[in-house]
Amino acid sequence: MSSSPSSLILKIQCPDQVGIVEQITTIVAAHDGNLTQVSQFADTINQWFFARFEIQISELNSTKLQASFVGLAHQLQAEWDFRSIPYRMKTAILVTKANHCLQEILWRNQTGEYPIEITSVIANHLECQELVESSGIKFHYIDELKAGCSVEDKKLGFSKIDAILSKENTELAILARFMQIIPEDMCEKYRGKLINIHHSLLPAFIGANPYQQAYDRGVKFIGATCHYVTADLDAGPIIEQEIRRVNHNYTPEDLRLLGRECERIALANGIEYHVNDRTLIKSNKAIVFSK
Amino acid sequence: MSSSPSSLILKIQCPDQVGIVEQITTIVAAHDGNLTQVSQFADTINQWFFARFEIQISELNSTKLQASFVGLAHQLQAEWDFRSIPYRMKTAILVTKANHCLQEILWRNQTGEYPIEITSVIANHLECQELVESSGIKFHYIDELKAGCSVEDKKLGFSKIDAILSKENTELAILARFMQIIPEDMCEKYRGKLINIHHSLLPAFIGANPYQQAYDRGVKFIGATCHYVTADLDAGPIIEQEIRRVNHNYTPEDLRLLGRECERIALANGIEYHVNDRTLIKSNKAIVFSK
Amino acid sequence: MSSSPSSLILKIQCPDQVGIVEQITTIVAAHDGNLTQVSQFADTINQWFFARFEIQISELNSTKLQASFVGLAHQLQAEWDFRSIPYRMKTAILVTKANHCLQEILWRNQTGEYPIEITSVIANHLECQELVESSGIKFHYIDELKAGCSVEDKKLGFSKIDAILSKENTELAILARFMQIIPEDMCEKYRGKLINIHHSLLPAFIGANPYQQAYDRGVKFIGATCHYVTADLDAGPIIEQEIRRVNHNYTPEDLRLLGRECERIALANGIEYHVNDRTLIKSNKAIVFSK
Amino acid sequence: MSSSPSSLILKIQCPDQVGIVEQITTIVAAHDGNLTQVSQFADTINQWFFARFEIQISELNSTKLQASFVGLAHQLQAEWDFRSIPYRMKTAILVTKANHCLQEILWRNQTGEYPIEITSVIANHLECQELVESSGIKFHYIDELKAGCSVEDKKLGFSKIDAILSKENTELAILARFMQIIPEDMCEKYRGKLINIHHSLLPAFIGANPYQQAYDRGVKFIGATCHYVTADLDAGPIIEQEIRRVNHNYTPEDLRLLGRECERIALANGIEYHVNDRTLIKSNKAIVFSK
Repeated sequence: MSSSPSSLILKIQCPDQVGIVEQITTIVAAHDGNLTQVSQFADTINQWFFARFEIQISELNSTKLQASFVGLAHQLQAEWDFRSIPYRMKTAILVTKANHCLQEILWRNQTGEYPIEITSVIANHLECQELVESSGIKFHYIDELKAGCSVEDKKLGFSKIDAILSKENTELAILARFMQIIPEDMCEKYRGKLINIHHSLLPAFIGANPYQQAYDRGVKFIGATCHYVTADLDAGPIIEQEIRRVNHNYTPEDLRLLGRECERIALANGIEYHVNDRTLIKSNKAIVFSK
Repeated sequence: MSSSPSSLILKIQCPDQVGIVEQITTIVAAHDGNLTQVSQFADTINQWFFARFEIQISELNSTKLQASFVGLAHQLQAEWDFRSIPYRMKTAILVTKANHCLQEILWRNQTGEYPIEITSVIANHLECQELVESSGIKFHYIDELKAGCSVEDKKLGFSKIDAILSKENTELAILARFMQIIPEDMCEKYRGKLINIHHSLLPAFIGANPYQQAYDRGVKFIGATCHYVTADLDAGPIIEQEIRRVNHNYTPEDLRLLGRECERIALANGIEYHVNDRTLIKSNKAIVFSK
Repeated sequence: MSSSPSSLILKIQCPDQVGIVEQITTIVAAHDGNLTQVSQFADTINQWFFARFEIQISELNSTKLQASFVGLAHQLQAEWDFRSIPYRMKTAILVTKANHCLQEILWRNQTGEYPIEITSVIANHLECQELVESSGIKFHYIDELKAGCSVEDKKLGFSKIDAILSKENTELAILARFMQIIPEDMCEKYRGKLINIHHSLLPAFIGANPYQQAYDRGVKFIGATCHYVTADLDAGPIIEQEIRRVNHNYTPEDLRLLGRECERIALANGIEYHVNDRTLIKSNKAIVFSK
Repeated sequence: MSSSPSSLILKIQCPDQVGIVEQITTIVAAHDGNLTQVSQFADTINQWFFARFEIQISELNSTKLQASFVGLAHQLQAEWDFRSIPYRMKTAILVTKANHCLQEILWRNQTGEYPIEITSVIANHLECQELVESSGIKFHYIDELKAGCSVEDKKLGFSKIDAILSKENTELAILARFMQIIPEDMCEKYRGKLINIHHSLLPAFIGANPYQQAYDRGVKFIGATCHYVTADLDAGPIIEQEIRRVNHNYTPEDLRLLGRECERIALANGIEYHVNDRTLIKSNKAIVFSK
């Protein structure tokens, strides 16, 4: 988790070919960089290469390396990102009424687990206001998105959210049990920056009331899924899932209570992977270089 | 698991009302029966009562108890079953090519775990013949059900299977990776006596090639589901599920290999629950009184 | 979890013999009680009987039943307890510096999961004071038990704790990462009322710094154990355990961070079982009638 | 799992320093090798570097690379190994009476999962003979190691085993529930080539009858541990562990039955990691580059 002050993370994906790792390590070595962590995955089915490198390097050489890298990246037809450590990713959290996921994030953030700065919490209900403000975080209430709102209200409400995210230069928005479907254009605009927690083991039980669905089906495991949001409801790239074994004694309400554990943990881990640049998205899948 | 020679298992389900347990225990006590295990579940949502009792009782009193019980059962509008211990449940196994589930059952049976007698193995391919016959078990090859068979062949094939099951007084038929859809009338005829293992964590990935589907969706858990067969494909009452965590490194083939562990264990446990009379079916759900 | 207002829980343990369940259900029926949940375990190795009954019964009959029961209980040489629902178990929480277990309990209590009243939090450090007081709960700071305290201080500190528990009629004291060894006489006095969370999968890694021990041994699972406190350090009856898979990438500090999840969940579940009277202690083991 | 015919695996460990990955990838690139899989772990606590590389390379260049590598390896003060793919690791299995682990290995080997050749099964009892010989594998019965054998018998027995392993050029010996303590000199001679399965979640319940110990302690999880054998009983480097949740209903015999699942799976996975050169041993820990 920890890296010395002058460190770099490089994420890269490109068509697979002979010698990618060698070329990258050569250019790193040429700038006196030291590879402290190498994670690599060659998808032999789709002929695609994914990697993440942690590099110790002087600030001066870091700038030079990033400049030199452009040529290689183009040659590899790569998508790539550099990030200088340390950093604080500007993060917004969207909630409705339930506070368990929000609490988990606030608590983990207080302990210093995440390299993030929580810029604000945005809500379409007031239940979480006190918790948020007592934590010293700005709380935005979007009145337009209350239950039974009109199409116009909904449009207005989301344009307000968009304005907040834009103004605060939000790099990550977390839907922490935000019970609203995100408009398609916003999914597109924030592609790869919008993380949701869904309260089922996707792809099972898409949509509303998954715990009731799980109860009706009599499954032996319930779960929660942390995923990137796409315009396709509950169908974006999966980052993390968490499960619990259940039996016939669990009512839908019992499942909902137990399920909160899955939601909190799947979301907390999913966030950890994202904010530490451990995820790469390709088509509808996320490669996650976890521990 | 063990019960003394003159023991009884009573399974019962009925509309819930005040005093069911008391009435049952009273009648047991009146016949000098001793309750060694009581499992009970009152479904408060559907107002339904389920229970399983293990009773130590003399053979003479066992017969009397079963006779006396009829009155109470009718009064409770109950479905119920008595089974005298020990017993050997006549069991057939249906397979196609893959032998891992078959092996698991044969092996567990050899160790004496199951109170069953394997009367025969029925197959639509020849791959498992040697394993079956070397275990001293009859092997029925149903030539009609080979790949690409006609509708008539299929009908004929299944009527042969039905004839075998009838002739052998089969009480349980296990589809141990039998890659054929069971005809609706047979599902009906053997309702509650037909157990299947599906190679996904149902209701996810119904139908063909679930491991490929799981790979495509990028899930973090794969699993297998042991369920009772109904006319609705892969949708019958779930008895048991088993899961394994996976990640992007697993190809569909890797998932298939790993998934065999889930299949073997979910099926082995599902069989254990069924053959020890630990399952009760109501609508499309199975109540499972496991340990 | 829920029971109607005039309900009773009966916990009982006694030497096993023929007909215990029948005798109990007969006496319940004689007082027009309705058994809504029966959990029973006959330990055939040690010839010991354990059970828990939930009984719907009028208040008047409840009193009569409890009175009538004494005779049967004596005859069975039983230990037994009745508890009228609803109730609020008076609960104290003891902490040192770490707040994650405390937060988990406070949060679950706020959601109404537990039938408890938190009477106070007792601490030998000040780190948790703000959290406790902002939740409207009394905070007792025991200055004598700070790091490096003398034997006399320690004695005095624990006598203060004992005085608080006595004064507040504490029925349950939870050691939520309280880093002090409880004096033997206090273990004895509060036997069965003192719950601890130990940060290892007991009996592995007893004592100090279990995460470092786990790291040194290279185990593939870490865990936490919720148990009743006895004079024998970390060796009391186990109520609940929770685990996580790990690998060589986890430093001792990573294990400590991840382990907090285990600690929070094992403790939260252990408390749930205890405060709902789902545990019975016999010798050094706890029978837990969980869902 | 799969690698093209002319592939190499390189395992290496050495004191950590700047630029190791770069130096290795440079020398691989210089021989026209293509890195298809890179697994790397820098132990920052002990300043030690571990890595495993899969390299596609022509046979000619493979030889040259291995020769050239010696210089770099010495300079890095490294321990290293090359292995040309494909290969069949000569493997012996040692058993006593129980056959479940043996069966699991035989079955996985038949499906082609392991790059091994089972040269023989060595036993100190006759129970497994039929299974082994019906699989077409040589069975060595070591009469001297029967129950209650003398110290001289034991010495003679193990010298016979050593002779077999030597004669068959055994590269791996698997103790598949072999109920004998391996003499210290043999542990030393076959260091890193001797894999055991212990029927507990080590370090809990070392020694005899761990399921009884687990029962007595009332743990909520049982498990099995696959580890390298060292002279220190049940204390060698852990390769893999597997667990199952249990409760008070499980007798020691039930735990033994359930535990076999853990034993089979932990051993099967442990073998997979070892025979695919995914393990590196340092002091008393194994680094395992699993999927």
